[in-house]
Amino acid sequence: MMPRLRAGILGATGAVGQKFIELLADHPWFEVAELVASSRSAGRSYRDAVNWIGSSALPAKIADREVTSLKAELACDFVFSGLKAKVAQETEPRLAEAGLPVISNARSYRMHPDVPLLIPEVNPDHTAQIRRQDGSSGGYIVTNPNCSTVGLTCALRPLYDTFGLEAVQVTTMQALSGAGYPGVSSLDALANVVPFIEGEEDKLVHEPCKLLGQLQSDGRIKLASIAISAQCNRVPVLEGHLACVSVKLGRPASVQQVREAFTDFQSPIAQYGLPSMPRKLLTVFDDERFPQPRRHVESGRGMTVGIGRVRSCEVLDVKFILLVHNTVRGAAGGAILNAELLVKQHLLPLRSATGATA
Amino acid sequence: MMPRLRAGILGATGAVGQKFIELLADHPWFEVAELVASSRSAGRSYRDAVNWIGSSALPAKIADREVTSLKAELACDFVFSGLKAKVAQETEPRLAEAGLPVISNARSYRMHPDVPLLIPEVNPDHTAQIRRQDGSSGGYIVTNPNCSTVGLTCALRPLYDTFGLEAVQVTTMQALSGAGYPGVSSLDALANVVPFIEGEEDKLVHEPCKLLGQLQSDGRIKLASIAISAQCNRVPVLEGHLACVSVKLGRPASVQQVREAFTDFQSPIAQYGLPSMPRKLLTVFDDERFPQPRRHVESGRGMTVGIGRVRSCEVLDVKFILLVHNTVRGAAGGAILNAELLVKQHLLPLRSATGATA
Amino acid sequence: MMPRLRAGILGATGAVGQKFIELLADHPWFEVAELVASSRSAGRSYRDAVNWIGSSALPAKIADREVTSLKAELACDFVFSGLKAKVAQETEPRLAEAGLPVISNARSYRMHPDVPLLIPEVNPDHTAQIRRQDGSSGGYIVTNPNCSTVGLTCALRPLYDTFGLEAVQVTTMQALSGAGYPGVSSLDALANVVPFIEGEEDKLVHEPCKLLGQLQSDGRIKLASIAISAQCNRVPVLEGHLACVSVKLGRPASVQQVREAFTDFQSPIAQYGLPSMPRKLLTVFDDERFPQPRRHVESGRGMTVGIGRVRSCEVLDVKFILLVHNTVRGAAGGAILNAELLVKQHLLPLRSATGATA
Amino acid sequence: MMPRLRAGILGATGAVGQKFIELLADHPWFEVAELVASSRSAGRSYRDAVNWIGSSALPAKIADREVTSLKAELACDFVFSGLKAKVAQETEPRLAEAGLPVISNARSYRMHPDVPLLIPEVNPDHTAQIRRQDGSSGGYIVTNPNCSTVGLTCALRPLYDTFGLEAVQVTTMQALSGAGYPGVSSLDALANVVPFIEGEEDKLVHEPCKLLGQLQSDGRIKLASIAISAQCNRVPVLEGHLACVSVKLGRPASVQQVREAFTDFQSPIAQYGLPSMPRKLLTVFDDERFPQPRRHVESGRGMTVGIGRVRSCEVLDVKFILLVHNTVRGAAGGAILNAELLVKQHLLPLRSATGATA
Repeated sequence: MMPRLRAGILGATGAVGQKFIELLADHPWFEVAELVASSRSAGRSYRDAVNWIGSSALPAKIADREVTSLKAELACDFVFSGLKAKVAQETEPRLAEAGLPVISNARSYRMHPDVPLLIPEVNPDHTAQIRRQDGSSGGYIVTNPNCSTVGLTCALRPLYDTFGLEAVQVTTMQALSGAGYPGVSSLDALANVVPFIEGEEDKLVHEPCKLLGQLQSDGRIKLASIAISAQCNRVPVLEGHLACVSVKLGRPASVQQVREAFTDFQSPIAQYGLPSMPRKLLTVFDDERFPQPRRHVESGRGMTVGIGRVRSCEVLDVKFILLVHNTVRGAAGGAILNAELLVKQHLLPLRSATGATA
Repeated sequence: MMPRLRAGILGATGAVGQKFIELLADHPWFEVAELVASSRSAGRSYRDAVNWIGSSALPAKIADREVTSLKAELACDFVFSGLKAKVAQETEPRLAEAGLPVISNARSYRMHPDVPLLIPEVNPDHTAQIRRQDGSSGGYIVTNPNCSTVGLTCALRPLYDTFGLEAVQVTTMQALSGAGYPGVSSLDALANVVPFIEGEEDKLVHEPCKLLGQLQSDGRIKLASIAISAQCNRVPVLEGHLACVSVKLGRPASVQQVREAFTDFQSPIAQYGLPSMPRKLLTVFDDERFPQPRRHVESGRGMTVGIGRVRSCEVLDVKFILLVHNTVRGAAGGAILNAELLVKQHLLPLRSATGATA
Repeated sequence: MMPRLRAGILGATGAVGQKFIELLADHPWFEVAELVASSRSAGRSYRDAVNWIGSSALPAKIADREVTSLKAELACDFVFSGLKAKVAQETEPRLAEAGLPVISNARSYRMHPDVPLLIPEVNPDHTAQIRRQDGSSGGYIVTNPNCSTVGLTCALRPLYDTFGLEAVQVTTMQALSGAGYPGVSSLDALANVVPFIEGEEDKLVHEPCKLLGQLQSDGRIKLASIAISAQCNRVPVLEGHLACVSVKLGRPASVQQVREAFTDFQSPIAQYGLPSMPRKLLTVFDDERFPQPRRHVESGRGMTVGIGRVRSCEVLDVKFILLVHNTVRGAAGGAILNAELLVKQHLLPLRSATGATA
Repeated sequence: MMPRLRAGILGATGAVGQKFIELLADHPWFEVAELVASSRSAGRSYRDAVNWIGSSALPAKIADREVTSLKAELACDFVFSGLKAKVAQETEPRLAEAGLPVISNARSYRMHPDVPLLIPEVNPDHTAQIRRQDGSSGGYIVTNPNCSTVGLTCALRPLYDTFGLEAVQVTTMQALSGAGYPGVSSLDALANVVPFIEGEEDKLVHEPCKLLGQLQSDGRIKLASIAISAQCNRVPVLEGHLACVSVKLGRPASVQQVREAFTDFQSPIAQYGLPSMPRKLLTVFDDERFPQPRRHVESGRGMTVGIGRVRSCEVLDVKFILLVHNTVRGAAGGAILNAELLVKQHLLPLRSATGATA
């Protein structure tokens, strides 16, 4: 058995940081080596610094660790970043230049032409973009998409491959956990819908076109040409983004063929046996009342995307609904799966390849 | 001042029936004369027969009235029907044949070629369809649309008139009250979305085309030719259906022109001064977080349709959101406004006009 | 008709401040003359400075008013204070010394021996404490109790008068609005109970003993000697604090006698005809499922305290439940009623008595 | 390894029945052998007959099983009963007489003088009551308490043993799942509290006195003499009953001593190693905001009772809060633990011990 890689968690006390810690508690390849947070938390024990919001207990081996400042030297092989975009913007390149692979959930570099935007089952070859980054230090940045983008793009992948895709209409009903903690005021959330999420619709318009884009020989991505229109809503749900999707395909297909494209989808990395990989990326529900956030969000330990109600659309071609666990598949779990893919592709840790760290 | 018309309430103990009673408590034209319910309730006082779910108190003058059976002779000038579709199917024609105008919220006869499907501000001329019904008794049936249809069609009316309409994509987030009482189980509703409402999407596909259709000289309606695709969801909200809409117009228009079509819309019955008519049918919100069900559902005493976030659509032409009070404008309040229109058009009560019946 | 008194609103952009503005929109005696907030808001229009959270529209005549800084000279006859305790601590005495009656909802001076803690129907004579304050300027401070205290003490008043009271056990289930805006995070509130509210239980222990205390000839209050134990919980309810109460009486009484003490209670100020006074302070519900926050919180325009389930207690003597509207009767509405009482008692405005203002 | 005992599930399609199936999916000692439900479901596959409400998937090996009628001969060693009280009343004795041990969650026989009311960590010796039942057939009835009783009594056990107990005041805030499915209407539940649960307070008054009672030599239980007063509320929480408790002890004790009585409590069956037993029955939280239903209900796989906020009471002696998982520890999980205890005590199955029945 290989020694476990040492992971640092940037933004360790935030909502995404906490999810990283929860999901890494028993990870076979990675161990949490550094808890990195703002100077307000640095120097305190993690237990004291964090307002732990999870429903599983704070892992005992983490609780008494000291929180490190973002400025400090980090004793780890790579970092997961749960930083807010503004902090990530400045911090992530600095750490990459210092030689650390940065597996980031932040939005800052997702659309950067040299940074992979990655869902392992969707575009595992895009890690090749890393070579466009200055690799002299051994560091680099890899990102995962916005939580809503993840669910949508996982569902679009087989459709794009099988039929082509011209247009996508998507309306999301997004969980409160997507806004972090304290996030949405309960006076806005309870018995209400907030029909606006800052910046969210834009991400849904652009990120899928990069994820479904084609890797060029120069390491650039040729964006897929799909018109996407998104309407995003915040609903009083704890975990799980639900989306109503309607698509215009590149060539005619029956509802049954579209349904089969979902059920027959083979993950290109199925044979990799990554620890966080679900048995099936897409689960298609027969019951027309399903999937529902509260009932099905934990399917495949939160890494499966649920699909339901595949049917004909009166305006475009076919419509369906989908459910994605926004803080697992759509955030921390997705980033961990990205790191696992990088290990399998011998891209993580570059440093150990050069002897720079254990 | 004219003497108030005597209204019977069919399904008086149900959720819609209760809303009729609440809204008619101080109505200047109508008074509740008969409380009609199933044989289980008949003979009891209304207070005993009903599980009053409203947040306003049960009106004192109603509480001690005796509930009448559906089989009984009714001492009233017309009836409002809050019956379930299956009961309405058989009961409403029987009462119409017996000489009673039936102002119905049930879905049974909405798409019948001889029955007006009516929103006073949208298609007041459609009451002319009444003459296609056998008028010998003086009775007839008039219906109001499904709660979601109402909001959507109020918003589409100015677009259809100004630009023409080819296609509509709509995703609804509907309140629990739309399912009646007890309706949705709290275990399905709390912190969840149920992405399916039996029969609802079909109504959104067909009813707007009748409402926006053109009255022919023979009293038939030529349906509007608009492709509508609907996805309906139940969300944990008490009152107010929110919808995300995207439209393809008949001819090019800017977002600003579409917005003006909403704000400039003049109700064709503005001069009628009907008691339940809101000052403005459509209210356009500037704040991109609005309208929200909990905050804005009571605008215009629940009779206004709120519109927000008018913007360009990447797939069709323009998208926006709308909010409608599903149990007021979308049910009991809409039916009452229909009755008011019929009074103004001298169609209600035909009986009083001629001494016996028309 | 007398000219309306000019009221300033301290903390005008906060949750309590907004409620003051909503409730004063059509007040017959008071008009909003000054909107006072922090320097961050000062100079902006109220519409721009406020994040209006109410479900009624921001009153048009207020929206374009300019917000004034706490430091400014105020052109008004008295002020309502919705300030946070820390700011109130320093600001309220300063304004009182400057000659302004301060009708405060803040907790800072509630237990001060020279400041009336006031519920008009409970202890209207306690306004006599004002004379213990330095009256040379014409200003003074009057407070209303904590929102939970209000409901409890209104219910205890007739019991204390009729039977005496030795001990009270109270467990509250308090609405989210009690925590202000943004207040409780939706991730803490949704589908959850938070069994702790900072500082709340203490207020329930002490404030009722002052409210039920006896005014001495020197203007001091002799505290009532009642042992009170409180357990306070935050529940996912928007408006309305519900409490389960059990009491040990001073002398034996039947459940029926206790019930009659509630129903027969005569407000000592019934004859004053104050605009915000409910017809009945206490409403006793017969249905054992009532009162419920969502259904009954608006009873008596939010100024009535609902009581239900009066029954024998196996440990103390009698138990019952009560419901109070925490932001109306328990906060802004209670303060407005206090001001109305002061007008009736010729204590407001002292300044007009001296010619200083109209 | 012993062959697993064959369990029948009575009321298999109901909410409690589903929880039995979920919890028994991988049980080391028991396997589900019969799915018993009403004649409406009998003959259909379980998948078709059930409206599966759980968030874990319906176990595959159960889904295609045929549902058996209550009238049928059952091929199993014992049954778990999740029947409604009215059906249990007639069915459970009939099955016991037919030779089947009935491990029941129904309330029908809880207070019967010959039927054990059992929480293994609280009164494991009470199984001796079984011998008071007619044992000729080998069948008998054993019950577990009401869900709220379970949490309360687990907390009271160490206090009763260490200090004695005179009186208990308890106010509960109970989850929706306690009412079964569909149970509470979402229109009653959302953003509301229903301050009444039919029959619930009575159970809290009587059941703890039996559970803490003393087994006599004749197999009867001498009830503990504790005055208990209960106020029960339904709150919009999915799983987990929270209770605010105040107790009068038999002899003086400090808060610290009470706290230690909780933390030091040793389960009398700790050495039994029962599969469903939690590592610790009682967990005491330090954070005064805890325990909370949504965060802590799954502690100890739902079998631990959480305790918090131990502090002095102004009226009785000491107060605290507690949290119990109402459908696991308080229902199906509790019944399964009862069955495990009976196995350990060689009381289950009597039939296998003798070849036919005892």
